Amino acid sequence: MTKKTKLTRREFVGRAVSAAAVSAVPARSLFGASWRGGAGSPGADWKEEGVLFLDKSPYAKLHNIPVHAVTIAAGFWGARRETNVEKSIPSMEKLLEANGRMNNFLRLAGKSDAAQHGPVYSDSDVYKWTEAVGFALQSGDRPELRAETDAIIKEVVAVQEPSGYLNTYYVGDKAKDRMLPDVQRWGHELYNIGHMIQGAVAYYRATGDRTLLDAGIRFVDGFLLPNFGPGADKKPILSGHPEIEMALIELYRTTGDKRHLDLAGYILQGDERIKLPPHGYVYHFCGIPFTTRTHLEGHAVRAMYACCGATDYYLETGDQTYLKALNVLWGDLVAAQMYVTGGVGARSSGEAFGDSYELPNFTAYGESCAAIGNMMWNWRLLAASGDAKYADVIERALYNGINSGMSLDGTMYCYRNPLGFDPSGGDQIRNPWYDTTCCPPNLERTFASLPGYFYSTSKDGLYVHLYDNSQLDWHLEDGTGLKVAQKTNYPWDGATEITVTPAKPAEFTFYLRVPGWSDGTQVSLNGKAVSGATPGQYLALRRQWAAGDVIRVKFGMTPEVIEANPRVVDDYGRVAVQRGPLVYCLEQLDQPDGVQLFDVSLDLRQKGSSAFHEEFHKDLLGGIVVLKHTGAVGEKSNSLGALYRPYGAEASKGRQVELNFIPYYAWANRAGTPMQVWTPVLKA
Amino acid sequence: MTKKTKLTRREFVGRAVSAAAVSAVPARSLFGASWRGGAGSPGADWKEEGVLFLDKSPYAKLHNIPVHAVTIAAGFWGARRETNVEKSIPSMEKLLEANGRMNNFLRLAGKSDAAQHGPVYSDSDVYKWTEAVGFALQSGDRPELRAETDAIIKEVVAVQEPSGYLNTYYVGDKAKDRMLPDVQRWGHELYNIGHMIQGAVAYYRATGDRTLLDAGIRFVDGFLLPNFGPGADKKPILSGHPEIEMALIELYRTTGDKRHLDLAGYILQGDERIKLPPHGYVYHFCGIPFTTRTHLEGHAVRAMYACCGATDYYLETGDQTYLKALNVLWGDLVAAQMYVTGGVGARSSGEAFGDSYELPNFTAYGESCAAIGNMMWNWRLLAASGDAKYADVIERALYNGINSGMSLDGTMYCYRNPLGFDPSGGDQIRNPWYDTTCCPPNLERTFASLPGYFYSTSKDGLYVHLYDNSQLDWHLEDGTGLKVAQKTNYPWDGATEITVTPAKPAEFTFYLRVPGWSDGTQVSLNGKAVSGATPGQYLALRRQWAAGDVIRVKFGMTPEVIEANPRVVDDYGRVAVQRGPLVYCLEQLDQPDGVQLFDVSLDLRQKGSSAFHEEFHKDLLGGIVVLKHTGAVGEKSNSLGALYRPYGAEASKGRQVELNFIPYYAWANRAGTPMQVWTPVLKA
Repeated sequence: MTKKTKLTRREFVGRAVSAAAVSAVPARSLFGASWRGGAGSPGADWKEEGVLFLDKSPYAKLHNIPVHAVTIAAGFWGARRETNVEKSIPSMEKLLEANGRMNNFLRLAGKSDAAQHGPVYSDSDVYKWTEAVGFALQSGDRPELRAETDAIIKEVVAVQEPSGYLNTYYVGDKAKDRMLPDVQRWGHELYNIGHMIQGAVAYYRATGDRTLLDAGIRFVDGFLLPNFGPGADKKPILSGHPEIEMALIELYRTTGDKRHLDLAGYILQGDERIKLPPHGYVYHFCGIPFTTRTHLEGHAVRAMYACCGATDYYLETGDQTYLKALNVLWGDLVAAQMYVTGGVGARSSGEAFGDSYELPNFTAYGESCAAIGNMMWNWRLLAASGDAKYADVIERALYNGINSGMSLDGTMYCYRNPLGFDPSGGDQIRNPWYDTTCCPPNLERTFASLPGYFYSTSKDGLYVHLYDNSQLDWHLEDGTGLKVAQKTNYPWDGATEITVTPAKPAEFTFYLRVPGWSDGTQVSLNGKAVSGATPGQYLALRRQWAAGDVIRVKFGMTPEVIEANPRVVDDYGRVAVQRGPLVYCLEQLDQPDGVQLFDVSLDLRQKGSSAFHEEFHKDLLGGIVVLKHTGAVGEKSNSLGALYRPYGAEASKGRQVELNFIPYYAWANRAGTPMQVWTPVLKA
Repeated sequence: MTKKTKLTRREFVGRAVSAAAVSAVPARSLFGASWRGGAGSPGADWKEEGVLFLDKSPYAKLHNIPVHAVTIAAGFWGARRETNVEKSIPSMEKLLEANGRMNNFLRLAGKSDAAQHGPVYSDSDVYKWTEAVGFALQSGDRPELRAETDAIIKEVVAVQEPSGYLNTYYVGDKAKDRMLPDVQRWGHELYNIGHMIQGAVAYYRATGDRTLLDAGIRFVDGFLLPNFGPGADKKPILSGHPEIEMALIELYRTTGDKRHLDLAGYILQGDERIKLPPHGYVYHFCGIPFTTRTHLEGHAVRAMYACCGATDYYLETGDQTYLKALNVLWGDLVAAQMYVTGGVGARSSGEAFGDSYELPNFTAYGESCAAIGNMMWNWRLLAASGDAKYADVIERALYNGINSGMSLDGTMYCYRNPLGFDPSGGDQIRNPWYDTTCCPPNLERTFASLPGYFYSTSKDGLYVHLYDNSQLDWHLEDGTGLKVAQKTNYPWDGATEITVTPAKPAEFTFYLRVPGWSDGTQVSLNGKAVSGATPGQYLALRRQWAAGDVIRVKFGMTPEVIEANPRVVDDYGRVAVQRGPLVYCLEQLDQPDGVQLFDVSLDLRQKGSSAFHEEFHKDLLGGIVVLKHTGAVGEKSNSLGALYRPYGAEASKGRQVELNFIPYYAWANRAGTPMQVWTPVLKA
């Protein structure tokens, strides 16, 4: 164990910390002239970098705006984000401490005698939490939280070894195992560092503090680059849990050091020198060239993170073989592998993608991290293309399969996000802590980073992707200052008023996202109707914009009854209900007394099509629109019926009942109760 | 490692082989007078014992007849059984040898230098194969097979240790681990011995040879009873894979030694001294009192074998708490846990029962061994009750979920028996060998023992359970000789002619099983119609029977369209097709060119109900009735359609196609091709 005081950036650059040469970190100014003209004083570029920093990425059509440029006001996400920063992030800090995750660092510094705690990927819990803090601080300083996080970062970097190596598990007796092929496969050393770099970048972009960022650079430049990579003089790398790829490329975007990008490319290519059994290449989603993949398979989070890294690589290199593979994989995602909630990963066994159309509801895995990975991947594809189909997936995952992962009070988390649930099986679906606690801080970093997903800029204007009460204060890519205010009750109401205020009158295109689910959307500009709104596309409003211009949009939010492709066996003869971006579900406790959830059907026989009654309940589950619809229930509970019987023998569907649907994200926030998204339907 | 020559029974009884007292084995004559008057010369009682020997079991309402009492002639099972004994049993012997299973014994005798081969339960492969031989020989001597098996048995008993312990895995360095709690949990020592005893009993009942039987007794009396059991002076037992329970009780039925029954009772009760984590009691289906169980759960084969043992225990003791628990568990089986094929075990993960109604088709486990366990359990419940509902489950499992486990040529086996299959997933569903080769010899012993399942006797007469061309040559329980001949083309045709020939005119009840699936069954006796045939019951024909009496029965075999309870999500909106005892399926390669299996629906719109065309194809799959029905297929393949879409958007079901159904048991005997049992249905 190495005791080592923190090196400041200056000290570090001036010292050779290992036998291997450590290159000086290129300063941001190496990037050359910026197109930015407005905000951002010289030397404070870190403040201008978004969730991703794509301004210099040659193949990014859209560019991120910084998180601080958007203030989300009271509303749907405002409430969620307040809970996140007031409850979730602080309580997770305490849980990480209580479960020895912080202590793992202290013990290496000789400040604790406690044993190592947690699985091999425990360091990443701390780093992901740090990333959540970083994003939270980008939305405004919180001195106490910052001080605590600064202290944690100090403890982390204090135990980095002179070589740059940093890990609290592969120490002592286990130090000899570092980067052995099997440890690369299962040991998560690079996964941990990937999360450290992501956390460091977010913290740097919040505070300008490079302490953790420099530690990440030291690992990469000091330990990794000199010793690992292609070529006979270096050892091979296997990315047993992809994550380092996207981290290295974001590091490249931050440092400008092309070796970081090239290392990511090398890892995405796979090094034949590390051999896996055939299933290993499937499960780990690494080890063979990413560009040869045609199917999402194996561990879902691994696959999603690998896709993120590969898209990042395309954004920097424009490599068409990557774009082709990414298109094929995305086609597989949306045609055969994604839940209607935007969740992915059908199988509990291996936390994995299943076969095409294998989308069981009750046994669905749909890990929160995998849905987040799906959102992150689509965010990168959206940047590469400007195609609204990716924004549709982002919104679907965000509002449903991700949002379900955190309880409304911000202290309980789903690891699995199934689309059907029967508590009689004994499962506790929400828990405050998991020994593998990847999902909770992942959810926290996602909600904290959310302002960064609302808008993008492009050469010709501004894209709006998400809708909620909010203020944008940023500028166009030509430097023209621009404010945009959204006033809305989205997602409960489709009406949104958007006030566009450029610093001076300017011609540009305002790309207004028309969600794929919307119907009969009406758009007006300064009171005059605008045609051309097409679901699943951006409506391009190009004109000379001036202060006080107002766009009024009303997205059609008629509740929609959705069926799945008949190849999805588990959804056959069943329907899901969606209103706006929200997928709905039935919870037993909202249904009439005596009606068993698994006995009901949605009854479309009466009116020939659906007829939902919408009711806003402000005191229910934080305030939600409840959907009511006529259902049918047999005279006898299905639980009492025969398992097999002649077809049609019990065809009569006795009495009518009123079904009460709630948004899926809000499930399991009251007593344990049966739940389902896909409900049997009786046809007209 | 102990080298030891075989002990003859006489030598063994005369020697104290361990510090513990080994009791002399009570001779069969201790059982007192037999009710048997006819067959069987004195001293040859072993010839009169069936699959189970229940003649002395106080709570058995029905009693087994010996396997040799029924000769199955040419027909459905005749062909299967010929393949079994001519192909499967000999080829499995070679495979067991080639994979080191026999050699594991030889090496302990110093006759081989090869290493131990196979998992901890490898000895059971040999024993289960021996049991298959035992049953095969009960249907007629095969000198060559017998000589080979005698030799194998010699090699087995040669390495039994003086203590009675016998196992080829826990030897040498591993000998110190014997019967440690964790080894009891995972090591299968008693599972192996259970199969040894079952094999020994079958071989004894075939040949009168006690060599292996005495080895089993030596293990129990010499090693187990003195050292393990209740009481502070003995170590506790945990039955990590139930099997020993039913073996001990069959041993008790063979030896009359009540300690064998009591030991089984003790194991079924569970010993609190061995603690498992909570899930352990679920997975292993042991360790807590069997009588506290209310739900089939955990590893399916373990659960089924435990239920067999518990039913055996009830048959001997009449313990009502057992009967009550067994009834609850059986209710769970047929109401919520059994596939329409009679297979059980929904989950691949843990080879386990799922939640109630969790019966996925494509990912179904349905292990061949579990279906066999289901049949064995129901065979015991049938003996306890005489209730035809158990015979219905036996027939369903036998003709479908068991029969599917062996290829038609007798050399390829299914471990899993899913009800839907897509070979594009890469699975090879039938294989000649599995390193865990439990299923193949289990299937072989089942088919070899089949004659023993056709009839039972009761105080008041004879029960016929199964139908096929066959001859019974046995006697009533009062000793009256009785021959029964069946002439039929069952299961392809419901007409069966049954000639009843008592040695002398006698009054008794002939219980004719009317299968639960039958409709409009007609029964005549000597040409005169008999009323009262009720599906799912035995038709009791009590009269003075005389030579030449003829029962003609015609079971209605109209192909039936079956739906599942709507709580079975995976079957919702879908139907299965059954004709007689056979469940049918669709294989892609039987459907019209260009029609994708997963695009078709069974179309019941035209005629309001099903209208199958039946065709016997004598050269297809060994001769089967093919069912043809109109189906519908959309203009566009589902594979090209959107994953989610507005309900009803693609409602039109384009063109008609002719669907060709084959019996499920015959699937996967040609090229790899998609298959499904549950097909979407279009309603009238």
